[in-house]
Amino acid sequence: MLPYVNLRPPFNITRASHVRLTVADLAESRNFYVNVIGLVVSDEDDSVCYLRGLQEACHHSLVLEQAREGGTCRRISFRVFFDEDLDAAYDYFRENDLPAEWVEMPYQERTLHVSDPVGTPLELCATMETLPRMHIRFETFKGAHAQRIDHFQLLAPDAYESCAFYGGLGFRSSEYLADGDTLLGTFMYRKGTCLDLAVFPGEGPRLHHFAYTVSESHNIFAACDLAGNLGYGDSVERGPGRHGPGGMLFAYLRDPDGHRVEVFNSHYQTIDVETEPVRWDAESLSTNARWGLPALEKWYLEASAFDGVPLLAPGSPQNPMTLERLLLAARS
Amino acid sequence: MLPYVNLRPPFNITRASHVRLTVADLAESRNFYVNVIGLVVSDEDDSVCYLRGLQEACHHSLVLEQAREGGTCRRISFRVFFDEDLDAAYDYFRENDLPAEWVEMPYQERTLHVSDPVGTPLELCATMETLPRMHIRFETFKGAHAQRIDHFQLLAPDAYESCAFYGGLGFRSSEYLADGDTLLGTFMYRKGTCLDLAVFPGEGPRLHHFAYTVSESHNIFAACDLAGNLGYGDSVERGPGRHGPGGMLFAYLRDPDGHRVEVFNSHYQTIDVETEPVRWDAESLSTNARWGLPALEKWYLEASAFDGVPLLAPGSPQNPMTLERLLLAARS
Amino acid sequence: MLPYVNLRPPFNITRASHVRLTVADLAESRNFYVNVIGLVVSDEDDSVCYLRGLQEACHHSLVLEQAREGGTCRRISFRVFFDEDLDAAYDYFRENDLPAEWVEMPYQERTLHVSDPVGTPLELCATMETLPRMHIRFETFKGAHAQRIDHFQLLAPDAYESCAFYGGLGFRSSEYLADGDTLLGTFMYRKGTCLDLAVFPGEGPRLHHFAYTVSESHNIFAACDLAGNLGYGDSVERGPGRHGPGGMLFAYLRDPDGHRVEVFNSHYQTIDVETEPVRWDAESLSTNARWGLPALEKWYLEASAFDGVPLLAPGSPQNPMTLERLLLAARS
Amino acid sequence: MLPYVNLRPPFNITRASHVRLTVADLAESRNFYVNVIGLVVSDEDDSVCYLRGLQEACHHSLVLEQAREGGTCRRISFRVFFDEDLDAAYDYFRENDLPAEWVEMPYQERTLHVSDPVGTPLELCATMETLPRMHIRFETFKGAHAQRIDHFQLLAPDAYESCAFYGGLGFRSSEYLADGDTLLGTFMYRKGTCLDLAVFPGEGPRLHHFAYTVSESHNIFAACDLAGNLGYGDSVERGPGRHGPGGMLFAYLRDPDGHRVEVFNSHYQTIDVETEPVRWDAESLSTNARWGLPALEKWYLEASAFDGVPLLAPGSPQNPMTLERLLLAARS
Repeated sequence: MLPYVNLRPPFNITRASHVRLTVADLAESRNFYVNVIGLVVSDEDDSVCYLRGLQEACHHSLVLEQAREGGTCRRISFRVFFDEDLDAAYDYFRENDLPAEWVEMPYQERTLHVSDPVGTPLELCATMETLPRMHIRFETFKGAHAQRIDHFQLLAPDAYESCAFYGGLGFRSSEYLADGDTLLGTFMYRKGTCLDLAVFPGEGPRLHHFAYTVSESHNIFAACDLAGNLGYGDSVERGPGRHGPGGMLFAYLRDPDGHRVEVFNSHYQTIDVETEPVRWDAESLSTNARWGLPALEKWYLEASAFDGVPLLAPGSPQNPMTLERLLLAARS
Repeated sequence: MLPYVNLRPPFNITRASHVRLTVADLAESRNFYVNVIGLVVSDEDDSVCYLRGLQEACHHSLVLEQAREGGTCRRISFRVFFDEDLDAAYDYFRENDLPAEWVEMPYQERTLHVSDPVGTPLELCATMETLPRMHIRFETFKGAHAQRIDHFQLLAPDAYESCAFYGGLGFRSSEYLADGDTLLGTFMYRKGTCLDLAVFPGEGPRLHHFAYTVSESHNIFAACDLAGNLGYGDSVERGPGRHGPGGMLFAYLRDPDGHRVEVFNSHYQTIDVETEPVRWDAESLSTNARWGLPALEKWYLEASAFDGVPLLAPGSPQNPMTLERLLLAARS
Repeated sequence: MLPYVNLRPPFNITRASHVRLTVADLAESRNFYVNVIGLVVSDEDDSVCYLRGLQEACHHSLVLEQAREGGTCRRISFRVFFDEDLDAAYDYFRENDLPAEWVEMPYQERTLHVSDPVGTPLELCATMETLPRMHIRFETFKGAHAQRIDHFQLLAPDAYESCAFYGGLGFRSSEYLADGDTLLGTFMYRKGTCLDLAVFPGEGPRLHHFAYTVSESHNIFAACDLAGNLGYGDSVERGPGRHGPGGMLFAYLRDPDGHRVEVFNSHYQTIDVETEPVRWDAESLSTNARWGLPALEKWYLEASAFDGVPLLAPGSPQNPMTLERLLLAARS
Repeated sequence: MLPYVNLRPPFNITRASHVRLTVADLAESRNFYVNVIGLVVSDEDDSVCYLRGLQEACHHSLVLEQAREGGTCRRISFRVFFDEDLDAAYDYFRENDLPAEWVEMPYQERTLHVSDPVGTPLELCATMETLPRMHIRFETFKGAHAQRIDHFQLLAPDAYESCAFYGGLGFRSSEYLADGDTLLGTFMYRKGTCLDLAVFPGEGPRLHHFAYTVSESHNIFAACDLAGNLGYGDSVERGPGRHGPGGMLFAYLRDPDGHRVEVFNSHYQTIDVETEPVRWDAESLSTNARWGLPALEKWYLEASAFDGVPLLAPGSPQNPMTLERLLLAARS
């Protein structure tokens, strides 16, 4: 059902690292991510704000870049283990006729920009400046106390093809949704938890969401409550609820530019080579557990485009069981 | 805005006590209330099951009575402080041309059956048999660890009139919803928290829901998760979410007969005579806080009828902002 | 075992209301109560700071009064229900040859100062100025999110005699510790939870501690963690732990003047007239549940004296099972 | 300060895997680990019981082996990534004149028994039988809901030497305690969190404790409360408290044979090559955060010996700041 995974990949991606988003109002976005989500500002100026989670030592996991319109994603980034993995990555992408270019990025050592076969702009680096972890600086905590970036979810025209590409880079699936022989989505990881990268079918490539972990279930309520009190009540798009795949409690919020961020509590540990991916049979793309209403249509259809990357239509028509469909069906 | 409250009422109702429900399948309902909600069985036989919350010493706060069809409420019950309060209550109801009758009920001392002006069947008693509180018998805990019954919510043809009647019995309002000069609903209490009895307009009298407290927010997720795993996933009708009025976290579940039970975390303390009811301006009956989707239409319209009590249409047409309306409006 | 309780007391005390403490450094104490405990400042000037819990509408539950030395308690206060209860209280204390005096106190209506038979200075009032409850103003929360004052614990020369006096005022016991026929301590209440006033034997009268409720168990860890990070690490005197009587999770902290404050999560509901006090057989004064080390000796022996009130020795010698005794006994 | 770490180790240890303990009463130990800690039984017979945490797919992380006396540890085990890593490990230990022997162990594929330079018996394997993860089977949860094994803590005669040996196998330190130039203890990891193996100086080699993660802070209270109610109240040896190094909330319990097990909530993520170990200056071995009493002397001195492995005295005398010393010092 799932494509081949190369357990000895050509270079060693270790984890989801950071995401670069364009925002129309830097102060507003900063307020949202600090006071609702709970991120810490590592550095900022008039045009960019670097944020990290409470337990993160690396300089940034979220980079907000002021732009005229905002609402696009510039790049998602993964870490590699050694600096020399970057060279191997450069060679790999070039040999596969994919874009690969050395760039300089603030607060990072050598950095490589590459794209996957559908054009998703990726950034790879091996080291960053570090700052003290803030996870026991309780007196500074704000918002939902987000701990660390965990994963990205992409919409891609063909989930199987994307899964195969990332499988070639060593991404294994912890769980996946399938309808008969059709792969509806997969949760892939490099680090030892369920997820670094999820891919679901849809017009793409687009960034569906990025996710931060929180320590405890009450932090998920706090994200919603603080969003409500700070003027972002409508941003709570889905949840709080429970995922079936992965088993996490979650809430999805939309930031002031419409970027979707998930806060969720902790995953399980993966790592071991003999554990099999868990299959979820589904006729839809829902990831609810056994209770809770389906997501709104916009949760399925709206996502952040990547700056300047053309969109491709999904290979098969999407027909998710949205909340709207469910209620309309019940009406007729 | 709110009707007069008699702070020296003719008799002393102290708190919401218990509710008697008819159920079509006693074993199934028992399973739901024990393994999802977390109640403790005090006594049972083939036709009736008596349950109480973990911290309750009194014999029962929920009585499930086997009936051919189930789905109706037989009576909601309040406690009075002294046995002599029952005599005063008897006189009060008779003097006001309302039904009042002495009855014998198992596990209770002297018991009085009365009805409010719209026919809501009430039960009053002063003492019950007691059993050990189970709140620190952690090794016996099941379900969502429901602690104690807290309140009832009624639908009544005229919320103001019902509020006035119960105000005459000493029920004060902690918070209320109003649209201009129209009272949309009120949260009344006798014990020192926000609620013993809420009344909202609707075809009635009917029991909209009864509510149990839980200790911590994670217990609310547990109610949903256990409902999902034990085959009651569709019973999670609304939430988890946050109320504006009262400020509680909540989830509403429907039991196997469709009776609606709320689990919520703790209220604030009331008691003091000088604190004013909090007004919430609303065009609808929603009790969400500043985030979260509105409730489904059925949450507003469906409720448990009282056995043999005729229904009265509400004085003014109801037009709640249901989830269906919101989504259909957004469509057109 | 327990003395008589007058269920129709001469006047209606409703709950623990507030405590007045002297402090040597007002700014330091304010910092502790706001940033560790989580209280809200209602009003303050150079000589006094009025604080309340997040869910409290009444103006103050803690009054910090600048004094040269600090470390004493000026008065503990209870609320009565009606203003006329104050008159009945005045008469009652005068008739019993106990001090009673009308005073004026800021932010309170008519106020009465009285003393119990061992000289504990009490303040009674019926109404206060009110302010908005802050319990759903999540964006303002600090410290351990203390919700409301709950109870006082006194040391008194003879716990039985004190219990009898307060029993005459309608205080019932929810639970008590006894060693054979000797009452070691009792948890008394007027409001519908376990506690408004605990009395234990010791040199007195002194205020052993006052207590604030918190919503969830993680708030108890937060109190300790914030104390540690804000320079009050040594103030965590006992806990986190679990009480047997009452069943609460707790931590005890000492404020900058040595006043002891407890944070604990919620009690159970009392109210009903037929429930019997729970007896705990103990050879000591420990209130631990079935796990956890005993308290340090100072927890038993140190307490805040009342300004200008002479101390009386306890009738029987105290020999609590302190942590020191336990460990030293194990040594020898 | 810290010894060299080989980031390209001769074989790839991925994580702490399991521990084999001897117990005097298998039924009693099973009861403790299932009903207090919350482990799941994977298999059992009259002489052995295999347990795993709720989120573990691999067959066992704790193996209880019936023995006449109990109280010893037979082996701690690590996982390697590929089966071929076992061959590399065999060669490495043989080349370093350390014991290495192929064995067969139930439910595991090829298994290697080796010893570190001070004789700690280690077990290495690459694959196990798998079973379904139970982490969202909420209806089956018991005890403290332990999620997965996390780490071992060893006492070794020379912490620096042990740290150097494991550094050669790729174990990096997340945090460490030092007194001037003396390493007092170190927290080493292979998987991407703070810990797989901690080493502290003491008579050894002995197993000081093994640790399971729990999801939320309330689970730590649950471990203590259930221990208390199920007859293991005295087993709660230390905590609940907060570690400085690592920043976790914790409680330590002693099982019926005296083996020490820690439950704690989640660590932070490590992985990245550029992050530096965090140094904690300490004159003692305490790992408390900035609040809380020191551990009892027995917490420092008692540990599980390894079956048949001779003990070596520590190179430098140990003088931890125990609770006993603190109290005796305060006395004099």
